[in-house]
Amino acid sequence: MPETEFATTLVALDLVGIFVFAVTGALVAVRKNLDIFAAFVLGGVTGLGGGFIRDVLIGATPPAALTDWRYLLVPVAAGLLTFVFHPAVGRLERVITLFDAVGLSLFCVTGTLKALDYGLDPVPAALMGMVTAIGGGMMRDVLAGNVPVIFEGNLYATPAIAGAAVAVLLDRTDLPVFAVATAGFCTCLVWRLLALVRGWSAPLPRGPANV
Amino acid sequence: MPETEFATTLVALDLVGIFVFAVTGALVAVRKNLDIFAAFVLGGVTGLGGGFIRDVLIGATPPAALTDWRYLLVPVAAGLLTFVFHPAVGRLERVITLFDAVGLSLFCVTGTLKALDYGLDPVPAALMGMVTAIGGGMMRDVLAGNVPVIFEGNLYATPAIAGAAVAVLLDRTDLPVFAVATAGFCTCLVWRLLALVRGWSAPLPRGPANV
Amino acid sequence: MPETEFATTLVALDLVGIFVFAVTGALVAVRKNLDIFAAFVLGGVTGLGGGFIRDVLIGATPPAALTDWRYLLVPVAAGLLTFVFHPAVGRLERVITLFDAVGLSLFCVTGTLKALDYGLDPVPAALMGMVTAIGGGMMRDVLAGNVPVIFEGNLYATPAIAGAAVAVLLDRTDLPVFAVATAGFCTCLVWRLLALVRGWSAPLPRGPANV
Repeated sequence: MPETEFATTLVALDLVGIFVFAVTGALVAVRKNLDIFAAFVLGGVTGLGGGFIRDVLIGATPPAALTDWRYLLVPVAAGLLTFVFHPAVGRLERVITLFDAVGLSLFCVTGTLKALDYGLDPVPAALMGMVTAIGGGMMRDVLAGNVPVIFEGNLYATPAIAGAAVAVLLDRTDLPVFAVATAGFCTCLVWRLLALVRGWSAPLPRGPANV
Repeated sequence: MPETEFATTLVALDLVGIFVFAVTGALVAVRKNLDIFAAFVLGGVTGLGGGFIRDVLIGATPPAALTDWRYLLVPVAAGLLTFVFHPAVGRLERVITLFDAVGLSLFCVTGTLKALDYGLDPVPAALMGMVTAIGGGMMRDVLAGNVPVIFEGNLYATPAIAGAAVAVLLDRTDLPVFAVATAGFCTCLVWRLLALVRGWSAPLPRGPANV
Repeated sequence: MPETEFATTLVALDLVGIFVFAVTGALVAVRKNLDIFAAFVLGGVTGLGGGFIRDVLIGATPPAALTDWRYLLVPVAAGLLTFVFHPAVGRLERVITLFDAVGLSLFCVTGTLKALDYGLDPVPAALMGMVTAIGGGMMRDVLAGNVPVIFEGNLYATPAIAGAAVAVLLDRTDLPVFAVATAGFCTCLVWRLLALVRGWSAPLPRGPANV
């Protein structure tokens, strides 16, 4: 695949990821009986928040989403659609979960590659990939008054770390960026889907917590 | 009005906006029975937080409030006054709501103009204006353990978006900045006051939310 | 003490501070029965969050912790140890509180000196010192769904402000940085320990809060 076509594919996938993340944000707003504006804000925060945190930390300001209006249009569209058609959207739970896994897998890789591009070392770059992937969802949950769902043993962040790690490791080889990104993406996606299908979960603390 | 006089007016209005926002933050601290330090922090976060988020996102660091001590003194004064005289301050609810609308109207315009000044396109600039106006209040509510009040149908953010939109549109004309700012300010203020007086509210989701 | 030895001491103390803060973050995760990943995230946020906020605000991006892998390893180690040995760690409450006071005292001084180094004026620099010291703990509490403990009258932030103030004042003298840092550190530490031992607390609002 030529370089420009790959870049177009990346932007398209990026917009898909933002859309699906924004739908999950707007659904949280609807389920808490918040207003349409909350659907926009929680949608926007979930879709764009992780990338914003990454860009601010690595000094890539203003973030890409503030220089390209398409990135802002997508969460607005997602928020509006979810607000209006929420009973139908809610029934698509399984489809949303699948696309959410795609967004997670994509963001952990693109976040890592961008951080490497800005000169970060491998370990911090992988961390930035994870932050890109999970940061928006954490902000969504905190703004909605929930404890972040990724803290509750559902093995959501671990695949993102794995995908980011694969990306930083392969980035040191001679492989083309397309292959590096694909390998990281598939690692995260397969792990996440297996965790969902098999019901894997992260370890919870053992024994009583002496408060 | 000459340019320098206009700049002085803007700074004065800015400090008024920060003061009133800080009072609302300190009132939240008092009403949750938190200590005097919480009154300072919630006051400072409410008054300055929106501008901090905007400045960090557009790369205008350090934010203005960290280079001009008056911006830091104002929330401290507001926090102290509110903490000591809170029964009296609480009775001024209507006055505070009025000034809060003034602060909202001011911040949505100054935030937009600053973002345009830093080279952002119209749509992201208007978004930054809205973030300036509502970001501090959202941080206040999250830190105090509340769901942001702007999510609960009270038509608070919509006027800010409208004021920011008017400012970006008129900024493309030949009108002097004074006229642009005034038009945006009045749009937001009139809309917000009408919403308060008439009890307008933002749409809530219809039908059952299937959780 | 020669300059290089002092720098090494500072980094070592910095890592100790991050470790102890990270332990408090991981303990919150365990006590809320969250998973091991939450222990890592809350540990990392508590240990590194205050410095991240400071660095983003003063424009020192990427933050030091993203350019030195030791800063990232420490919270992971603290999170893992706390997660596995939490009953034992929980019994060390008094030791943790002591080291937490050391971390607080250290961060308020190093945060202030870094902000001065980036050209901030004395008052904003002291504010950044306080933010460095208390920001991580506030993010920990918000992410875990708690109201920040520093808001509840336990005199935690005041010593940090005092230590930062001493540091900015002495920085204007001819004293070597080692003496400046030590004086600020001791001011904060002694005040915090006295507050703990004597049960001092910050003023709470008087009279009924008319909601």
